[in-house]
Amino acid sequence: MNLSDVVLSCRVRLARNIDGFSFPSKADKTQTEALTQKIVDAASEFGDLRHIKMADLQMNERQHFVEKHLASRELIVSDSSSLLVNDAENISVMICEEDHLRIQSILPSLDLQKADEMSSAVDNVFSQSLKYAWSQKLGYLTACPTNLGTGMRASAMLHLTGLLIAKQTDSLFRQIQKLGIAVRGFYGEGSAALGGIFQLSNQFTLGASEDDIITSLDRILRRIAEQEMSIRTLLYQKNKTEMEDVIGRSLGICRHCKRLSYNEFMQHISNIKLGISLGIITFIPMQTVDDLLVQCQTASLVSRIGNPIDKNSENIARAEYLQKNLFDTEKNA
Amino acid sequence: MNLSDVVLSCRVRLARNIDGFSFPSKADKTQTEALTQKIVDAASEFGDLRHIKMADLQMNERQHFVEKHLASRELIVSDSSSLLVNDAENISVMICEEDHLRIQSILPSLDLQKADEMSSAVDNVFSQSLKYAWSQKLGYLTACPTNLGTGMRASAMLHLTGLLIAKQTDSLFRQIQKLGIAVRGFYGEGSAALGGIFQLSNQFTLGASEDDIITSLDRILRRIAEQEMSIRTLLYQKNKTEMEDVIGRSLGICRHCKRLSYNEFMQHISNIKLGISLGIITFIPMQTVDDLLVQCQTASLVSRIGNPIDKNSENIARAEYLQKNLFDTEKNA
Repeated sequence: MNLSDVVLSCRVRLARNIDGFSFPSKADKTQTEALTQKIVDAASEFGDLRHIKMADLQMNERQHFVEKHLASRELIVSDSSSLLVNDAENISVMICEEDHLRIQSILPSLDLQKADEMSSAVDNVFSQSLKYAWSQKLGYLTACPTNLGTGMRASAMLHLTGLLIAKQTDSLFRQIQKLGIAVRGFYGEGSAALGGIFQLSNQFTLGASEDDIITSLDRILRRIAEQEMSIRTLLYQKNKTEMEDVIGRSLGICRHCKRLSYNEFMQHISNIKLGISLGIITFIPMQTVDDLLVQCQTASLVSRIGNPIDKNSENIARAEYLQKNLFDTEKNA
Repeated sequence: MNLSDVVLSCRVRLARNIDGFSFPSKADKTQTEALTQKIVDAASEFGDLRHIKMADLQMNERQHFVEKHLASRELIVSDSSSLLVNDAENISVMICEEDHLRIQSILPSLDLQKADEMSSAVDNVFSQSLKYAWSQKLGYLTACPTNLGTGMRASAMLHLTGLLIAKQTDSLFRQIQKLGIAVRGFYGEGSAALGGIFQLSNQFTLGASEDDIITSLDRILRRIAEQEMSIRTLLYQKNKTEMEDVIGRSLGICRHCKRLSYNEFMQHISNIKLGISLGIITFIPMQTVDDLLVQCQTASLVSRIGNPIDKNSENIARAEYLQKNLFDTEKNA
């Protein structure tokens, strides 16, 4: 079992605001447009960043960025907000979400140092031409006081299905909250932890250096991932048939169903991920499943089909796409 | 879709008693042994009939005959009863169940005339050396008055899953009960209709000739089977995806589960049978599934393993046997 079996991705996000401009919630259209232009101009120094205005997109196309974790659900509902995204889609800058800038980089598995370097590289480019709102005492000034200071939120998406089966998540989450770790669902604040996937992040941004935040979070996340891996092994040793049965049934349903709701998909794909990590399923690469976690989201399916569809058609499309991608590999194996 | 997709098997059973002997419930051990010997001697004229004493068998071995529909659940609980069975296992004679003799023949699909001929052939052999209890007024005398007269019960096992899905079985059964048809579960009186499989038989044995009973039952069963086939086609036309989804999920679970309870098995195998009849599943021959209906019963599984097993091991053995037999065919396809 590898760390990447448990840690799907990690992210470092920096909240920044530009001196002399109102926070987005207080700004009018003219101000927002002027600021956006300023930011886009500054970004051109970085090179590989495409500017995407929410106003130019259908809601489904906006949603697609949320599913890829490149934008927040808050960003896409505003017609005056926009997004900068690099080609590799591992760097994005949200413009005029809650703050003027939310610079973020996302990497597979757990590599917060690298993600921090990537975000900082973008931050450095912006800081050359934009004057950040910053105070000697408080650090970076942000719309919400919880982001004051470093303005940094580092997070990772962990698949804690073993701990969930063993009913150990509640006590674990109580413990780590005391260590300053916030626990959220698959799409951040207020979203459900479907399929046992949780987002863990630093709760405090003030009073610690960026390095301290990264180092401390990395250490805690590695410990949790190790706990998860141990409990998986233990559960499998103790309940071999039961685990293989549950995982097998999920595999069977994914293989032969004709429609699959999103919630059901998350439940079964979580079991399949568990099965791969335990070596119960050998013919599906973990990367395929991790890609499907994004590709089988609603907006991703719709964008592939190219026109709005009802729930039933979406569920049919999900089953078809899943089968094509999960079991084509098997034929080659 | 064929008649045999809906009618699994048919059976003609003749109840006979020997003049001068008490009914089994009133007979002592010596009487029963003397009578049994008389019957076994008479049977030797027929040739191919093996005599099996319940007292010589473990309960599981006895149960195996029930699962093959060669013995009733009532027969096997009595240590003084026994069974004659031919090699093809389509003729059996229960000795000292409720009556002295219960001669029965079982054939696949719907061929009551042929089953009647087979039972009658055995009956004729017995009647040459045994004096049946018979009255001019009442016909064959039987322990229970419901079997008086012809002593004949003709029945068939019908898979009425389409009518069940369309919620039409209740009204159908009310109608056919008025026509003198009794409806029972998979193992006769008092058993559940698992997987939508029902046993339909003539309710009356007195006041009609053997030919009339067979002809009338045959006509009604054919009509019901046609109704079932029509409703399946209609359901599939109207709810294509839903039907394919339900059938696919059953197929997927049967294919990849690691343990399967008997009730679950019956539910999924019923869906698979439906899928084959509708051409949704093409790689599994219907005969394979019909054989599995017997082979995946508890006692059959146990007899194959050779020693008593707990429920969990039984469910594991069921899943393994099912997968070996359902999906080996696929590889060859």
